[in-house]
Parts: sequence; structure tokens; C-alpha cells
Amino acid sequence: MNVSIIVIGDELLIGQVTDTNSGWIARHIAPYGWEVNDVQTVGDNPADITRAIDRAFELSQVVLTTGGLGPTKDDITKEVLRRYFGGEMITDPAVTENIHEIFNRRGIKMNPLTEAQAIVPSSCRVIQNRVGTAPIMWFERDADHVLVSMPGVPFETSTMMAEAVFPALRERFPSPVHIEHAVLMVTDYTESALAMKIAPWEDALPPYLHLAYLPKPGLIRLRLDGHHEDATLVRDEVGRRIEALKEILGPAVLADSDLTPAEILLKECRERGVTVATAESCTGGNIAHELTLIPGASDVVNGGIISYSNEVKTRVLGVNPADIATHGAVSIPVVRQMVAGACRATASSLAMATSGIAGPGGGTAEKPVGTVCICARHGDKEVYETAKFNGSRERIIDSATTRALILAIKLLRS
Amino acid sequence: MNVSIIVIGDELLIGQVTDTNSGWIARHIAPYGWEVNDVQTVGDNPADITRAIDRAFELSQVVLTTGGLGPTKDDITKEVLRRYFGGEMITDPAVTENIHEIFNRRGIKMNPLTEAQAIVPSSCRVIQNRVGTAPIMWFERDADHVLVSMPGVPFETSTMMAEAVFPALRERFPSPVHIEHAVLMVTDYTESALAMKIAPWEDALPPYLHLAYLPKPGLIRLRLDGHHEDATLVRDEVGRRIEALKEILGPAVLADSDLTPAEILLKECRERGVTVATAESCTGGNIAHELTLIPGASDVVNGGIISYSNEVKTRVLGVNPADIATHGAVSIPVVRQMVAGACRATASSLAMATSGIAGPGGGTAEKPVGTVCICARHGDKEVYETAKFNGSRERIIDSATTRALILAIKLLRS
Repeated sequence: MNVSIIVIGDELLIGQVTDTNSGWIARHIAPYGWEVNDVQTVGDNPADITRAIDRAFELSQVVLTTGGLGPTKDDITKEVLRRYFGGEMITDPAVTENIHEIFNRRGIKMNPLTEAQAIVPSSCRVIQNRVGTAPIMWFERDADHVLVSMPGVPFETSTMMAEAVFPALRERFPSPVHIEHAVLMVTDYTESALAMKIAPWEDALPPYLHLAYLPKPGLIRLRLDGHHEDATLVRDEVGRRIEALKEILGPAVLADSDLTPAEILLKECRERGVTVATAESCTGGNIAHELTLIPGASDVVNGGIISYSNEVKTRVLGVNPADIATHGAVSIPVVRQMVAGACRATASSLAMATSGIAGPGGGTAEKPVGTVCICARHGDKEVYETAKFNGSRERIIDSATTRALILAIKLLRS
Repeated sequence: MNVSIIVIGDELLIGQVTDTNSGWIARHIAPYGWEVNDVQTVGDNPADITRAIDRAFELSQVVLTTGGLGPTKDDITKEVLRRYFGGEMITDPAVTENIHEIFNRRGIKMNPLTEAQAIVPSSCRVIQNRVGTAPIMWFERDADHVLVSMPGVPFETSTMMAEAVFPALRERFPSPVHIEHAVLMVTDYTESALAMKIAPWEDALPPYLHLAYLPKPGLIRLRLDGHHEDATLVRDEVGRRIEALKEILGPAVLADSDLTPAEILLKECRERGVTVATAESCTGGNIAHELTLIPGASDVVNGGIISYSNEVKTRVLGVNPADIATHGAVSIPVVRQMVAGACRATASSLAMATSGIAGPGGGTAEKPVGTVCICARHGDKEVYETAKFNGSRERIIDSATTRALILAIKLLRS
């Protein structure tokens, strides 16, 4: 089944918010053989929205729209949909009731603008929004086309898409094509070096299998997609090919599922009963943040020290001030003491430490922006390196975070 | 000038990566009176890319594409562009030289796949990519239409767009319309309560001014946009209206420019010579991460303690174990001791502390998922509250982070 997505909102076209709904939808419908054909982002403008719907129906039987449904005056999508699908505006008492319930639960006072959200085109079927006040509207066209209008708040879209919208769509359009995905997370290669290495394997793929490279700093996701009506064939073939690829790449394969380095580390620490801490200077808490975003992190993560100032490095982590004076805060002797200090202060068996120059200022000829000393320690074992990353401050912080996690994973496995 | 953006890549349509390039471009061209009409996201498929270009040229004189230019086999954009604009594939020796230079700088070995990036359609003018190996290609059509193809790596797109592509476009298409933006960051209101409060002001806006609401957890951005050929008129009118709005909203206005709470706090701490620390349990380092993402954070941020385990709370932050036993780790007495401990351990004058239940597990009837105790301390002054946030683990962490920063800003201003 082909799906087109229309993302509505002036705020997207001026770049003040980033659309994450279309990606969420795509990720969650793919395993069921549904594919997103295209995503159009348009402003809160009736002509643009209408044209986008026309085009989407040319390409796809199912059109999903997100956004443009808030209670404030810049949202005009509902009236555009009424004109497109016909009917008149009516107040849906079930929506009114839902809005009252949501407001009661949150302890917020109702007002007329919120009440107006219960007004919907008579041509739609309403799906109640369990987690927000904007109703979800289902429109039918030409017997075999459907448009579903959903709110733009990512939490509402993802919750209601998973709970109600997608189950209803699958019932409406059962599909014969099976899709299989497999993912390898690969480190130690640049994108082109990896492509060279696996060219013979890739050239031998059958036409219904497709490989994509998804490079991130320090890591490449390889995704093998198969599309075929024969579910067994595509599943077996994807499995067989991915096993062969793992053999070719050996220890450069960090994981054979779509896990982040933080997820891999957390999982392997949990399996081994290892507790984790961080001592972060240039990454400023980002390693701990990535670990603690994962549900259940508290089983494994004890905590961490963000030692931005030298005083915190010496006072809390026990780094010798003489070493900071001699080697500088961005040095291997300092990160080695930081990592030991983090294990001690938090009573953890594994820790990672970073100290570097995230930029844009602070670089020197000897230690330019992007220089990061990283150390991982597990029990009495230690690995450390001085890395040189490129890009913006954010990218350097991200790269250092990823690299620290990869070092810890490799140390844990060694 | 109207711009259409085409974002190319299968990885976007299956949601494995999120497009941030279109938003970046939109944000950076808007101040010059350039507007993004629409954004189309398409896969690595010749027919889809061609159709997207056709449609983009119908709407806009300037079409920007990002992505689809990597050295690996799933990227076919370049051949599509050759067929669209004519010419033949030629090797551009200047690109070859640029690729060699980039690889030398990064200390990586060249390979034939990377060399192939120097092959470009003869119908384009190449703009050298100073920060990557994929060349930027400028195509002309019908005397007054331009398409510029850029790489998909966000760092490369943003750097080259700012340095070379946009300056060249502005020279090619000088524009008569002036755009003014003004932004207020507002707290303490829900979106609909805010709309009610400012309805009289909003209804009196002239037709060339437009207000948009951009709600985030705990914060609403109000953006007033003006478009007019008379630069003085639109600038004066936006200025006058926004001043009136600030008067209406009073202390609920956190800032009158497009700053995040972290940026506001950092700026005001720097102005006052205040140093900052965090003591984070449920936010797991995210407050410190948001602060340290900002260039120059090290002038103000001393560091922080991520006290995920109770042991770190007591050992490093000096929280009384009896209070944890009596009130629980998620309690006001505990966050008050955490914040004091953070000031002490890091020798900072201001600190924020969080302890809560980010979920999805760990909730109880008395303290359900989303309950977060937050405290901010500055010198001897303190504010604290028990907040109740909705949504996913990530959203609860984000909401608690924003709220802690807002409490600290308000405390600092009090």
C-alpha cells in the first residue's frame, strides 16, 4: 500500500520546528508492507493544502496529513477539508465530551477556542483523540481512497496512529506484499571504504533486495530491504544475505539490529551485571543523556560527573592538578584520571570520560577544535585515544559521545 | 523570491533519518525576504525525483535539492539531473583536486568510489564543497529558473549554503519584498488561553502582519511575520505591535528573541557573573547537555552531578539517606538537598535539581509517571515545585528540563 504524507504548518516552512511525524509514521508502517511515496510540507494556506491533497491522491490511495488543527487562528486545515470532501460544519458532541475529559484530567479550564475543536465537517468520520483535544478526521473518496487528518503534536500523532489510525487503515486496505528489513550497525569504515569492501556481495543481490547506506558520525547503518509477495522467500533471503555480510565485516559489526550505541551498551551491561558512569567535560552530559533516554536505564546507570571546570575535575573526580597544569585539561592523563574518578565516585564498574575542544572557540595549533581525548574503563582494563572530529560544536559533541560509547562497547566485549 | 526544496533519500521515506536541512535553509533565507513554498521528500528513484523537480519549477523559480549525492550505489540523483538539464557526464578536475585535499586533511585513503564524485553533468556549474567530497551543482533553466543540488549531510549543506550557495542566489535574484520577524517566548499560558488573552490585539493586526503560535512543552513561541515592499513601514509596525504585546503579557514573556531557555539562562548568568551547575536524576544530564551545547558555555557552567542512583545522591551530593527513606527519592526535601549539594560540589552560585519518574515504568498511585520534583537555587534563594508532565519518557525529560531552566531564569530575575 502506498501512502503520501502532507505535513501542514507555516512553522515548518520557516524552519522553526522540524517535522518528525512523517519519519515516525514511515518507520512504523514499513514492517507491514506499507510504503511512504512522498512527503509534502506546505504552509497554512488553503490553495497549497488543496494542491498537495490533489497531488497526494494522484500518487497514493492513502493520504495522511499532520498538523494545522490547533485551536488558534493560523490553522485553517479543517475548512479546507470540508470544502474538499463536501458537507457542512457540525459540532460532534462526542468530541466535546472528549475535550472536557482531557481538560479535566490535566486540571485546565475550558475556553471557547478549545470548544471550537469539536466542530468538524459532516463528511468525515471522527476518531477520538485520546491524548489531545484536536479530533482525528477520516475522509473517503472515490470508493478506494482515504485521507486521515491528524494533529501535529508528535506525541498525539504517534500515540493515535499506533492505537487507532493504522489498525483501521490495515483493516480497510489488506496488503499482499511482504517487506523484510535487516540492519547492521558498522563502525571502523568510511562510507566509501565500506562500499568497496562489500561490492562483490552487493553486486550479487537479487533485484528484490536493496541495500542503503545511512552514515552517522562514527557509525554506518546498513539497511537491507526486501519486497516480495512470497513472505518466506524474502525473509529467508534477507536472513541469508545478512549472515554472509556479517561474516565479511567481522568485529566491525557493532550490532545486527537497529540499536543506537547507547542501547547496545546498556543492553550488554545489563546482561553482564555491569554498572555504568560517565565523567564528561566536552560532551557536557550528553553521554549520560543518551543512556538515560532509554527506558530502564536506572538498572544500569549509576550516574555521572559533568566536570566542565577544572575545579570539578580535581575536587569531585580527584584529577591531579599538576597533571592538568603539565598536560592540559584535554589530555590522556586527565581523561584516565577522570574515568577512574567516575568509577570511584559513583561506585560503578564501567565508565567513560571525555575532555576536548568542542568549539567554535578554544582551539590551538597543537589541539585544534574537534580534538577530544576519550577513555573507557571497565574494572582494571582501559582504552583511550585522542580523536579529531569535524564539524559544528553539536556535531563534535555527538561524535565524541558516539565514539565514547563505541569504545566502551568494544572494551566490554574484549 | 519563492523557493521549493526537494529532499532526496530512501532513508528519509522510511524514517531512519530526519530531514533538518529544509528547516535550516528556511530559517536562514527568511530574513532576506525569501520564502520556502513547499518541501517535497522523495526516495532515490528517478521518476519520483523528476516529477518533484517538475512540480517544484511550477511553484518556484529557485529549487534547492539536498541529498542523493553520496558515493554509494543507492544515490542516483546526479544522473537524473543530467537527463533533466542535458549534457554529458564529465570529470571536473577541480572537484578531483578538492576531494584529494579533503581526504588528505582527514588523513583518509582515496578510493575509486570517491573519485567518481568528480564526475558531473556538463550542463552544471560546480560550486566547490569546501567541507565534503560531493560537489554542489548549479543548473539554469528557461533564463529565470535555477536548481542547485547540494549534499544531504547537514553540516555540509548548512556550511556551503551560508558560504557560497545563498550569496550566489541573492546576486542572481535580487528581491523587492521586505520581511520582518519578531518572536516572543511566552510561558505560564496554554495555547488556547494565550489566544483568548491576546485576541483583541491579534484581531487588530493589519493584513500584512501574521501571527503564528509555536507551542513546545512548557513554552509557546509567538512569531509575528510582516511582508511588505516598504521596509520602514513593516519594520516599524512589527516593532510597535510586539511592544504592545509585551505589555499585555508582562512577566509571562521569557524573552523577546528566538532564544531557548538554556540560551536565556546562560546569557543572563553571564551578564550577572553567576556560575551554574546541575544535579540531575530523571533528566539524566539533559539540562547540562542543553546548556553546554551553546558556544561559550564554559564561561558560566562549572559542571554537574548526574545522581541516578541513591548512592550518588548521598555520597556526592550529601543528601541525607534518612530523607530518601522517609520521603522517597522523588521528593521536595531530596531535590532541595541535591541543589545545595550541586552548588557545594561544583562551587557554583546557581543550580537546578530534578528528581522524578520519567517512565514508562516506576509510577505509583501517589507518584505517577510524569511526576518530577524540581528545585532551583541561587545564593540563599530557592524555588521548588512538584510538576506533573504528560507523554513519552523523552517528552517528560524534555519538559522537566525546560521547566527547571525556566524556574532558574525566574529565580535569577527575582
